[in-house]
Parts: sequence; structure tokens; C-alpha cells
Amino acid sequence: MSNFNVDADRLGRLGFPEIIYGASKSIEVLLHIIEHHKKIGQPAFVTKLQTHKIEILQERYPDAFADLLSGVFSINRQTDNLRQGEIAIVSAGSSDQFVVNEALYTLEYLGHKATCIQDIGVAGLHRLLNQLENLKQFKVIIVVAGFEGALPTVMGGLLPQPIIAVPASVGYGVASGGETALRTMLSSCANGITVVNIDNGYGAALASVRILNTINNSNGKK
Amino acid sequence: MSNFNVDADRLGRLGFPEIIYGASKSIEVLLHIIEHHKKIGQPAFVTKLQTHKIEILQERYPDAFADLLSGVFSINRQTDNLRQGEIAIVSAGSSDQFVVNEALYTLEYLGHKATCIQDIGVAGLHRLLNQLENLKQFKVIIVVAGFEGALPTVMGGLLPQPIIAVPASVGYGVASGGETALRTMLSSCANGITVVNIDNGYGAALASVRILNTINNSNGKK
Amino acid sequence: MSNFNVDADRLGRLGFPEIIYGASKSIEVLLHIIEHHKKIGQPAFVTKLQTHKIEILQERYPDAFADLLSGVFSINRQTDNLRQGEIAIVSAGSSDQFVVNEALYTLEYLGHKATCIQDIGVAGLHRLLNQLENLKQFKVIIVVAGFEGALPTVMGGLLPQPIIAVPASVGYGVASGGETALRTMLSSCANGITVVNIDNGYGAALASVRILNTINNSNGKK
Amino acid sequence: MSNFNVDADRLGRLGFPEIIYGASKSIEVLLHIIEHHKKIGQPAFVTKLQTHKIEILQERYPDAFADLLSGVFSINRQTDNLRQGEIAIVSAGSSDQFVVNEALYTLEYLGHKATCIQDIGVAGLHRLLNQLENLKQFKVIIVVAGFEGALPTVMGGLLPQPIIAVPASVGYGVASGGETALRTMLSSCANGITVVNIDNGYGAALASVRILNTINNSNGKK
Amino acid sequence: MSNFNVDADRLGRLGFPEIIYGASKSIEVLLHIIEHHKKIGQPAFVTKLQTHKIEILQERYPDAFADLLSGVFSINRQTDNLRQGEIAIVSAGSSDQFVVNEALYTLEYLGHKATCIQDIGVAGLHRLLNQLENLKQFKVIIVVAGFEGALPTVMGGLLPQPIIAVPASVGYGVASGGETALRTMLSSCANGITVVNIDNGYGAALASVRILNTINNSNGKK
Amino acid sequence: MSNFNVDADRLGRLGFPEIIYGASKSIEVLLHIIEHHKKIGQPAFVTKLQTHKIEILQERYPDAFADLLSGVFSINRQTDNLRQGEIAIVSAGSSDQFVVNEALYTLEYLGHKATCIQDIGVAGLHRLLNQLENLKQFKVIIVVAGFEGALPTVMGGLLPQPIIAVPASVGYGVASGGETALRTMLSSCANGITVVNIDNGYGAALASVRILNTINNSNGKK
Amino acid sequence: MSNFNVDADRLGRLGFPEIIYGASKSIEVLLHIIEHHKKIGQPAFVTKLQTHKIEILQERYPDAFADLLSGVFSINRQTDNLRQGEIAIVSAGSSDQFVVNEALYTLEYLGHKATCIQDIGVAGLHRLLNQLENLKQFKVIIVVAGFEGALPTVMGGLLPQPIIAVPASVGYGVASGGETALRTMLSSCANGITVVNIDNGYGAALASVRILNTINNSNGKK
Amino acid sequence: MSNFNVDADRLGRLGFPEIIYGASKSIEVLLHIIEHHKKIGQPAFVTKLQTHKIEILQERYPDAFADLLSGVFSINRQTDNLRQGEIAIVSAGSSDQFVVNEALYTLEYLGHKATCIQDIGVAGLHRLLNQLENLKQFKVIIVVAGFEGALPTVMGGLLPQPIIAVPASVGYGVASGGETALRTMLSSCANGITVVNIDNGYGAALASVRILNTINNSNGKK
Repeated sequence: MSNFNVDADRLGRLGFPEIIYGASKSIEVLLHIIEHHKKIGQPAFVTKLQTHKIEILQERYPDAFADLLSGVFSINRQTDNLRQGEIAIVSAGSSDQFVVNEALYTLEYLGHKATCIQDIGVAGLHRLLNQLENLKQFKVIIVVAGFEGALPTVMGGLLPQPIIAVPASVGYGVASGGETALRTMLSSCANGITVVNIDNGYGAALASVRILNTINNSNGKK
Repeated sequence: MSNFNVDADRLGRLGFPEIIYGASKSIEVLLHIIEHHKKIGQPAFVTKLQTHKIEILQERYPDAFADLLSGVFSINRQTDNLRQGEIAIVSAGSSDQFVVNEALYTLEYLGHKATCIQDIGVAGLHRLLNQLENLKQFKVIIVVAGFEGALPTVMGGLLPQPIIAVPASVGYGVASGGETALRTMLSSCANGITVVNIDNGYGAALASVRILNTINNSNGKK
Repeated sequence: MSNFNVDADRLGRLGFPEIIYGASKSIEVLLHIIEHHKKIGQPAFVTKLQTHKIEILQERYPDAFADLLSGVFSINRQTDNLRQGEIAIVSAGSSDQFVVNEALYTLEYLGHKATCIQDIGVAGLHRLLNQLENLKQFKVIIVVAGFEGALPTVMGGLLPQPIIAVPASVGYGVASGGETALRTMLSSCANGITVVNIDNGYGAALASVRILNTINNSNGKK
Repeated sequence: MSNFNVDADRLGRLGFPEIIYGASKSIEVLLHIIEHHKKIGQPAFVTKLQTHKIEILQERYPDAFADLLSGVFSINRQTDNLRQGEIAIVSAGSSDQFVVNEALYTLEYLGHKATCIQDIGVAGLHRLLNQLENLKQFKVIIVVAGFEGALPTVMGGLLPQPIIAVPASVGYGVASGGETALRTMLSSCANGITVVNIDNGYGAALASVRILNTINNSNGKK
Repeated sequence: MSNFNVDADRLGRLGFPEIIYGASKSIEVLLHIIEHHKKIGQPAFVTKLQTHKIEILQERYPDAFADLLSGVFSINRQTDNLRQGEIAIVSAGSSDQFVVNEALYTLEYLGHKATCIQDIGVAGLHRLLNQLENLKQFKVIIVVAGFEGALPTVMGGLLPQPIIAVPASVGYGVASGGETALRTMLSSCANGITVVNIDNGYGAALASVRILNTINNSNGKK
Repeated sequence: MSNFNVDADRLGRLGFPEIIYGASKSIEVLLHIIEHHKKIGQPAFVTKLQTHKIEILQERYPDAFADLLSGVFSINRQTDNLRQGEIAIVSAGSSDQFVVNEALYTLEYLGHKATCIQDIGVAGLHRLLNQLENLKQFKVIIVVAGFEGALPTVMGGLLPQPIIAVPASVGYGVASGGETALRTMLSSCANGITVVNIDNGYGAALASVRILNTINNSNGKK
Repeated sequence: MSNFNVDADRLGRLGFPEIIYGASKSIEVLLHIIEHHKKIGQPAFVTKLQTHKIEILQERYPDAFADLLSGVFSINRQTDNLRQGEIAIVSAGSSDQFVVNEALYTLEYLGHKATCIQDIGVAGLHRLLNQLENLKQFKVIIVVAGFEGALPTVMGGLLPQPIIAVPASVGYGVASGGETALRTMLSSCANGITVVNIDNGYGAALASVRILNTINNSNGKK
Repeated sequence: MSNFNVDADRLGRLGFPEIIYGASKSIEVLLHIIEHHKKIGQPAFVTKLQTHKIEILQERYPDAFADLLSGVFSINRQTDNLRQGEIAIVSAGSSDQFVVNEALYTLEYLGHKATCIQDIGVAGLHRLLNQLENLKQFKVIIVVAGFEGALPTVMGGLLPQPIIAVPASVGYGVASGGETALRTMLSSCANGITVVNIDNGYGAALASVRILNTINNSNGKK
């Protein structure tokens, strides 16, 4: 079997540990990596796992955490002492929940408890306007939207925080695959929102942590 | 020279006369067509004309109407007795004006005086909300937007009329050419808005007239 | 479980109630939403449901209405007193029926009984020409076509009403997915037809209702 | 200077001589090739020439034939004894004339006088129907169309001959560049029409000659 | 159930009967159409059928003809007195056989027995060169190729007949779906080859018959 | 002339004032807007201006600031008391300078003096490694790269701060237009970098300010 | 059954034997070809086989070699006396192993034992830098990478050998299908790396053998 | 002015010196870089320069070498003692010459005199077959082709050496921009040819030198 190069030093270097991309890895490879983490007593966190792989892993590790909707799987997971109230995850519709969950559980793995505010897409604008005061309290906002992906643009005009837009592969016809939502979010020239890959809740979580780590490192210094 | 087949009967058949697409026609061909209309005493209306062609035509027909921004040119134009208050043309930014003008002048040629409401894009949402009561009075709304093209989606959630969305080729990077705005408008699944080709102010005008003619034909009948 | 923001006021605001997009929602979420509608005694209407989800819902709600071909599901459906004779749904071939059905059942949910005229694609032009007089009676025409999508263009040259073109994901090679039919319909510059997303029978139905509501609101006023 | 490999034997092998593609060749290279043909007393035929190159060549060869619209240039051209009545070149609008001309002059160079029937696009269907009896007389029909490119599909349902469809780069928005017309023509599954590259009047001419040469070789044999 | 508009007159109008596209039709619709043909004692020919549909149809019509590879199904098929020696179907590799078969069986349905010459792709050029004399005898050549699709270009430089190129959806990476082969065939500017849609063996067969019908109608006339 | 809706309240709402997109606006419109700012004694800042427009504006406002490379123009510009040492703008090559400048001057307009570190693309990796200690001092890093756009990915693996990647439209062939660099940056799954539109130095500047404003608002609170 | 044209002479002509592309071939065709090789006592090597086909072949040929991950199957395989130490196959992550294996087993079939160095993607740059001295020993380096595909660019700036980049269809969103990795590798203008099709481990192996054969033929000559 | 990071060590590290990409650099930047090379007495080599920039540089450096067709410019160029007979540059047509020249002059700058064999595209196959024996003598073959780009595929089946395919942006319609030629070359699965970016004669030259340097380093060792 081929040997793997775990990037063990990533936490010290970047402020967050390595996370395992599960979609293209065989069960054999996944077990090899998870066993390695188990042996050294470290948590392991895997994303984008297909349902049948999660089911095999759950049988092997009955105590592990898994979320079938987002394809997330974790052993030795720690959810004590999570930081709260800093990150909001907003979504346009309940169809976006698989992306919301990937961001949510990745953030938990990285020590943060995010607040989820779902189903406030711009087709019913009052739902967003009702949340405006609530949203102003967070330091970073992750916004997930499929179809035409207009929600981050409208929010970017109403809120001053860093906004990380995540296009979701939700929709059909020209919206299928999430490319339209991605392009909409990138084209929104007016507001300084930034964008990650389609369905990349994981990347939005990491980007949030980069910002929060910088804020925390800056506190009391400047 | 090749002979042309003018679709003379279109007014009777469809409720609006033939309009001439100018972008790919040579000056020689354009003059041939315009002269024909002049001889029979009919108005002629040309769209998508390049600036240098308009300048040549203006020299030849000093009394003609021309708008360089939208590339519209017309002889024997009638603007008396236009119907008013039925159609609004809304745009996200002042960059969209060349498309607004094409719709505006096409509608004038077809007997309608539209009301233009510009620069109310969703990045500054209050500008749209301020116009909401005003907008509720119109029977048909044409909405022009470039960049991410989110305006028709937000309006479709707030207003009950027929909304005809026109993507504008305004923007750069992934927004250039108007394809992103087009896809955004088509992906907006929630609201029953309809879409025409990029920069097609002319088509939005015709579609509005189809609706208004049907309304007028229905009045007093049902 | 996450809470949902039903857009309860949509009927008053826009003239039609909220409709549920089923493709990306889990059974758990769908049941949650349908139960909510059941409890308050309202009809619920779901589109784009996969066959296996409909089968689960049918087992749970044996009295519900469902159409496997279009993926439509509804509880507490009302089909009394539908308005008739105002909307025609035309299709190029019998392969387009799944889109025709989505428009048809959405319209029924919104109070309209449309007339379906199928299999009159332009490859056998006499089939369309035979229907011309019949078609002139409707106030709005929805046209569904896959492959090259030429039918709305030809109809747009023959008929004066509002025409809403729906590209269908029917065809193979360069036609697969419906993108070619979509582009054909958008490119048809001559006629003021408007377009909705690929396979979006639902959106065409809503757009028709916007027009008809405006007509009805205009009656007796002007 | 680099030496060129003229494909001198092509006429014997394929039934038509080599034709020179002018768009990417420098004036120096073009003069080199034309001079070679002049020296051996053969006609030379160049396509897709930019206007400024044609003007330079015309100054050098005042007796040569040139068409600025299509970018065609020829020396030692022979137009006596052309075969007539076998090929029709049909176009949807007068904007397509530059492609019509390329086909027309290529066919003349290959010994055929085609009949041009222009401006009969499907938005005014009666124009096509009026030409139907006339069109039945030809052995091969070349059809040029831009925008949505629906004309060959409709003709393919009405006429039994070989139909060679040529998409034209005429249109804007999603129609710009001719890709939509190309895809429309390829997607037209019902009728056995065949397609060449965008703006390729030259290729349509060659394909027609392949068919006619086969017909003529077959005469009196079978 | 919806009623269908069979294009019964197509044989008289175009020289070939209607053929049924099976991919998007339900079994219910297919049975309805086949039964209609059976009742009037006519052959019915269906293309692009998925395997599971063919298996259902075969159970119902045990005497019918079916080819699983190409998805072709036919009742009341006639294969007596087929014309021979006029059409060759050439393919680059044995992976292309499903397209070859569609062309082959469509031609049989239309009265022609084609000759198949397979596996002569340009990566082993001698295989093509060995067939050159043989290929010169046919009146029309259909060429099927996937991957880079270069075979029609090379053949077009060697053979004078009408060549109808059919891109096959054979290959992976940038070749997957057949779009690359399609573009290669359209880009081959030098030779007057024409192209049909990806995997469209059926369309190539119809185009061949258009040519052969014209040849036969021309014989003894000119 | 049409009236404009200046978003005057944006500074209070979002923490940065409105900036004018110049590419699609006519000189007439631009002068109208700039005059308005001049009258109320406010700075005005315009981006993406074509060279010929800047030259006209410079003639009118000789004291204004302009950068032809990035298309930036400003009146009443304030560059006193800029905050320093918080933002680095890194670029892969000197060809990216037009994007670097847009970010740089936008940041100056918003009160920040960024540090530019250019020409450290990954083809000569030591250039980046030499800057690593220097780069660790900044709170936010903007990274501009064209061609294959790999620089943000490599930096994201070495540095813990928020990294905003800006694809530049620098390169040819598959790199032309910047789409490849954009996709590369979005695909970089491992590191939590975020992305803005192609050439959008302006958006990267705004996104940086959102982060820094949040940091500053957080200081002394938590 | 159709007959096949095996390219028997390829070894003599090109320095490597024919290899069979399995993805689009039916089991019937595959057995026909393998039997032919068995009868003449030659090895046969098949690539891109789907799992269910391999399982059928393994049942028929229990002694054959098969790798399910890469879809490779071989009979009469020879792995004695392989040349070693000349070729390295490098990959960015363990998800790329299916492409690595295709290259590895193809090279074994062609007489070379490659060295695999996996999981050294640029997000953890030290992993690559640690291998640098090791990598300098090889004559040819094959580099496999998915997602953003940046590894060959960085390696091309550090190593002088021929580098053959293979994009892998590993990733999601804009990375899915491997098109982004392909474009990244082609855009890397600085270093003279060359590229093969997505997932084309087989082609990279052949290209390596072309280089090594040339080296060996050159030895002792110049 | 910004400072530049010249990659001075590249020759020692990779076997070839840095080359300057000129397309996106301003004259000011170019002069800065060239002056630097002049001062240290080193040659400088710039590619992809627009004509108007070359003319400015030629005025400044009258003794420099420049080729307008390919956009190449060089000072302190050395063409003595070039290695000969190792590299052939083959092209399909004379329109490809601008790419041939870029490869040719880059190779000269790197110490190699390549042999150019032009105008042997596969539409006239005998031209290639005539050159076959000649071509067998070279160690590396660069093949440039536009339009359908079939030449490298055919050559790859006839010749055993490393073949580096360069797609040229020569052609129109679906061939315009060179994307079709690129995809054709990548799709050619059978032969182990490798590919560089569109119009990238420079990259093909570097790739050739990587191979030749490896050959030369291997001589006398193995």
C-alpha cells in the first residue's frame, strides 16, 4: 500500500489542523488514515463522504460522529468550550442545508459554535429584513445560496461585516451545478463580499477562522 | 443587388410593425430599406446601429430621430398620442441606460410612453423600497440589470405584475457580456418573471405590447 | 431540527401562494412542511420531486394528488371552479409532456384550467398551421420545446398574444440538457417572446397568472 | 522565406482545386502564392480576407475579382459556361449576405451558378411558403441563417433534397458568434439536414459540389 | 391521455417516413404509438431507446426487431430488396459501433443495405489507406469517430464523394460527450465534409437518403 | 437627462462610501456625478475608466488624481493619516500591476496604505520563501495572479491570515480573460482562501476593509 | 460480428504495442479481442474498464492481472526485467491514486518500473521540498494532480527534467471533472511542462516511453 | 516604480534562463527590465509583444533582433554554435507561421537550430507521407496546427519520437481561438503525444530543451 504524507504541522503553521477530503478516497485509504489518527489519539475529520462510505465507517466506529446530509464524519470529536456568537451561517432556503451543515460541523471541529439562520432568500425579502438587527451582532457571516444566488449581494448592501458567500449546487436548468450562483456572487461588484467554491462550506469555515484568529491575535495589541 | 422581402403584413398579424435590425446590415442595404419606407410614407425604425452608421444616416436624413447611446434610428417617427402610465422601465444602474433607451424608443415607436426609473440596484436596497408604491401602478414592468442581475428577482418577490427581465452586458470578469445576469434571471425560480436576450430592450418592448394589446382586447369582453 | 420561514403572505402580495421546490429537500424536511400546511388546513403544492420521494409521500398521504411524470405532489388540492379558455400549453413533441404537466398542474393549483395542444413541432409544419385559428382564442400561450426549440419562434411570427417559451431538456448531443433550446428561444429577436428556465413549467405558469391577474384587474377600469 | 506545399493534385483527387484561406496569412505570403498561380496561368481563389488586405491586393492586381462583403479575392477567374439551376442558396435575412456571397463566389469558381433566395426567415413564414414550389426544383439547397437559426429545420420538414445548413455569426447576446445557430441546426433531429462550420459558405459550396459530382458520375450508369 | 399528431404524410413530402424518438417517451406513450402503427399495418421504427424499455417492448412484441447496442426497435420491419453498394459506414474504432448500428438499421428501414468498414482510425493510418480503393466505389460515405474525431478530415482529403461526419460520444476527459469530435469535424475547413449531431447515426442515414433520392431522381433527366 | 440615485448613506451603513464604476458610463454621466460630489465638497472615486475618458476628465479637473494603468480617477482625494502595516498586496508578476494599483488606490481612498510585494510567482519559489517572514506581519493579504493563478494556493499553505485572491486577466490561450486563474483559486480546497471577481482589485480592497473594521470594532471589547 | 483491424505493427513502428481502450467496448467485443491475443500467445492490456466488466473478465481469466481502482486488466503480463529508476510518478494527494495506477501499470506493460511518490501537494509545501533531491535522479517525471492542479507548476520551477502533467478528475464545484486542473497546467507558461488529457495516466506513460526510447537510441551515438 | 524579482538562478536550476513575457507589460516596465540585462551584459529575450511595442523598442535598440510576426524581441542575442538536427518544427499550414517562429527563435535563444517543415496538413496527406523518412531523424518533433488540429494525431501514429503538439489560434467559427485544436490534441488517446497551451511555441521550445538536456546528461552514463 502507498504511504501517506500527513501534514501534521498545519495547526501550528496556519491555526487549524488538516482535514481529510473523503469523496475520492477508497474505504481502504480512509481506514488507514483514521486508524492513524486513532492510534495517536487525535481527532480526525472527513468531508464530502458518500452515504455508503459513511455507513461502512459507522459500522466500524459506532461512537463516531456522522452527518449523512453533508457527508461529514469524525472520530475523537471535541465540542466542549466552543466559542459562540461570532459566526452566523445564513441560507436562502432549506434545500441549502447540506452546505450549511458542512460549514457548521467544520467550525465545531475548529472550536466555534456558529448560529444558523435559514430560509431567508430574497424572494420573500421581509424574512431577511426581520433578521437584520440580529445579524449585525456577528463578526463574520457565511451566506449559502443556490439558484440565482442573490442573497449575498443584498446582504452585502445592508451589513458591514466580512461576508463569505458559498454558492450551493441547488437548482435545475441553467442553475444546476451551482455555476450560476457562483457567477452571481463573483459579479456582485458593489460590496466587498468574497466567494469560495460551490458547496464549499468547509472552505467558508476555514476562511472565517482565519479572520477570527486574526481578530483575536490583534486584540489588546494595536 | 439582392431584393428584400419586407414583412408588410406584420402589423395586422401581430399588432406591431416590422422593425429593422441594423447591426449586420451594410449602409447600402440600410439606405435601400429606408428609402422604400420613405417612398410609401411609412415610418422606419432601426435598432443596434453602430455609431458610424448613424452618423452617415443622419447626414442623409437630417430630420430623422437618432439615439447614439442605444443605436436607434428612425424616420417619419410619430410621438403624438402615446399611451402613458402602463409600462415602467426600471434599471439597476446608470450604466444600463443604453438598454433602457432601446426599450423606451421602441415603445414610443409602438405607441407607448414608458416611465423610466433608474439606478435602484439592490446594493442600496432602500432605493428600490422607496419606489415600491410608485411601481405598483404600472401594468407591465421591464427591468434592466447587468453585473449579477439580482434586481428582477428581488422585485419579483415584491410586485405582482408581469415582469420582463433584460440582462445588460454591463460588468467585467465573469459578468462581462451579460451571460451571468442572464443566467441569474433565468435561475430565479420563485416568481414567474420572464427573460429576453442580453441587451434586448427591443424584445422587452414587444413583449410588453403583446401583453397590453391582450389586456386592451380583453377589456369589456369577459 | 432547523426552523423554516414560510412566506405566508405571498398570495396577498403577489397574487399567488408559495410553492415548494422538492428536488433538493430531504423527506424529513418535506414532511415537516407538508404537515404544517395540513395542520393549518391549507393546500400544499410541491414540484420537481424524484419518483422515490413521491412514492414515500403517497404512502403517507394516500389521498394526495401526484404526477410521477412531472414530479408534482399536492395535498388539499382544489380543482373546482377553475377559469378556462384563457391559457394554452403547446408542445413540440410528446417527449415534452413532463414539462407540460408541471405547467398544467401548477396552473390548476393557481385556479386555471389550461388547454393542452401537443405534438405540433415545426418539422411537420401543417400540424401547427392546422391549429392556428384555435390558438388565436387564448389570452396567453405557453410553448414547450426541446431539441432545437424552434416552435416559439415560428409561433411568434403567426400569433399576437403573449408567448412564454419553455425550453425542455429533451434531446441528445448538443441538444442534451436543454441549453440549445434555451439559446434558440432567447435568440429569436423578431417577435417579443419571453423565456423561462429549462424545464420550468412552474415558472411559465406563474408568469401567465401575473399577466391574467393584470388583465382581470384592468377590466372595467381603463 | 519558408517554402509552401501547394496541393496541386487536389482537382484530380477530389473534383475541386485547392482554395486559399486568407484570414491568417500575411500579405507577403499571399503575394507569394498568388504570383505562383499567375506564373503557371492558373486561377487562384482566396477566402476570408480582411478588407485592408483586399485593398492592397486590388492595387497590385487591378483586373482581379474581389468582394469586400465576403472577403473573397480571385485572379484568372472563369465564369463562362457555369452550370445553372442545380443549387439554391437561401438566407433568413439580408444580414446573412456575407455568407451567401462566399458560397456564391466559391461555387462560381467551381463551375456552378447558384440561385440566391434571400430574406425568407421563419418570423414571417409566408415568405418561405411562397417560395416552396420554386425551391423544389433544385438538386441541393444551401441554407444560411443567424440568430436562432430555425430556417433549415422548417425547410427540412417541407423539402426532400439534400439541405446544407450554414450558421451565420449574425446576432447579439446569446446569438453572437453564431454558436446558437450552429447548435440549433445540429439539434434539428428530425430531417437529415447536415451542417458546416459557422460562416462557412465555402464549405457548403464544396459539399454541394461533392453531391453534384456524384450525381453526374451516376447519370446513365445505374 | 394526450393525443398525438403522427406526421403521416412525411414519406410523400420528403421521401422517407416518420421515425420515433424513444429516449424521452414513456412506455405508455411508446405502446400507444406502436399499437397505432400495428393497427394500420405499417412498420414502426424507434431510436435511442434505453435497454429497460427495449426489454419491456420485446416481451410485448416477441417478433419485433431490436438492437440493444444502438437502442433501435422496430415492428413490421421489411428488409427484402434493399439497395446495396451505394452507402459505406466507416468507423474509427470498435467503440463507435453503437452509432454505426443506428445508421445501419435506419438505412435498412429506409430501403438501403450499407457496407460497414470499422476500426480504421488514423492512429494506424495504413488501415485507412488499405481501404481506399474499396471506398471509392460508394456514392455516399458516413464516417463515425469519437475521441479527437480526425478520421473524416483525413478521408475528406483522399476521397471525392459526399462525406457525412458523425461525432461519437466515445472518449474521456476533454473528449467525453463527443463535443471535441464534433468541433474537430466542423473545423475541418478544407474539404466540404458536412456534420450531424453527436451520436446521430439516424440523421446521417436520412441525409444519405436525401442525396441518393436526388441522384435517382436525376438519372436519365439531365 | 435621467436622475441618479446616489447611495449617500453607504458609509454609515457599511463603513465605506460609494465608489463609481466608470467602464460603462458616458462622459456626460460621469461629469454629472463628479460635479455633484464637487458641489457638496466630497471626494469622488471612479474605477475601470478607459484611457480616453481619463484624459477628458484630466483636462477638466487638472488637480485630480488619475492612474492610467488601473483606470482609477479621483477628485478631492485625502491621503493624510492613512493606516499602515495592516494590508499587503502581493502579485505573481509585473504584468499584474494594473490590478495591484486598483486595490492600492481604492485602499488609499478608504484610509489604508497597503504594502506592495510584487513579482514573487511560484515558478521561482525562492522569491516567495524569501518574503515569508515579512508577510507574517500583515493582518490581511491580497494576492493577485494571472496565468495559472497558483500563488494564493501556495501562500494559503504557508500563512495563517485572511487571504483574498484576485485572478488577473493576464495570459493567453486557455489563460486569456482570467477564467483559469479564477477557477484555480476557487478549486484550492485546502486552505480557506476566498476569491473575488477577475481583475477586481476594488472588491478585494473593500473585503479587506470589512475585515479590518471588524477587527478594530472588536478591539477592547471581547 | 464485425471484424477488427488490430494495429499489429505498432511496436515496430512506434516502440510500443497497441493497448485496448475498454470503456466503450462491450464484453462481447472485449472477449473477442482478448481471445485473439491469447491464441497468438501475446499479452493484452486493457484500460478504463468499468468494475462490472473487470469482474466478468476475471471470472473468465482467473490468472489475469486486474486493478479495480484504475480499471486496468491484462493477460499474459510480463513483469520480469523491468527497467528501474528512470521514471517517477508524483501525485498531489491519495485521491489521485487511480490515475497513478493507470500510469504505473501501463509502464510495467511497456517494460518500466516507475517509482511512486504520493501525497506531496503544494498546500503543505515542505512535503515537496523534502523530496526534491530524490526527484532530481529521475529522467522523466509524471505529475498527477486534481483540484487546482498547481503541483506541476511548482515542480517545473524547481526541477530540470521533462515533466508530463496529468490533470485528475478529483474535486468538486468548479474543480469537478478535472477541467480546472487541465487549464491550470496548460496555463503554466513559465516552465516547459507538457500536458495530457484528464485522467490520462496511459498517455503519460506512452509519452515517457517515447522520451526514454529516444534517450536510449541516442546513447553512444552523438 | 515597483521593483522586480528577476529569477537570476533559473539557468543553473533548470537548464535554461528566464524569458520575459511581454504582452501585458508596459513599455516603461519592459525598458526597465531590458536595461537591467544590458547593464549586466546578458541577453534578454521577450515574447508575445504587440507590434507597436516592438516598434518603440526597435527605435531604442536599433541593433536588437525582432520578429513582428511572432512578437519576439531580443538584445545581446547569440546564434553561434547552435546545436542542429535534433529538433523539427512541423506545421499544418502557412497560417501557423507566427507560432512556428516563436518556437524557432526561442530555441535559438536556448542554443538550438531547429528545422522547419511547413504546410503539410492532413487535408493533403501525401505532403506528410513525403516527409516521413526525413522526420525520423529528429530527436524531438514540435507540431503546430490550427483549425481541427489533426496533424499531431496522424504523426503520432507514424513516428516514434517525443511529439509536442502546439494548438494554433488559426481558424474561424468553432475553430476560432484555438480551443478546438487544443481539445483535439488532448483527446488523441492513442499515441503518447503531449500538449502545451494555445500558441505556446515558447513552451514547446522549453519542453524540447528539457528532453534534450536529459538525453545529453544521460549520454555515456547508462
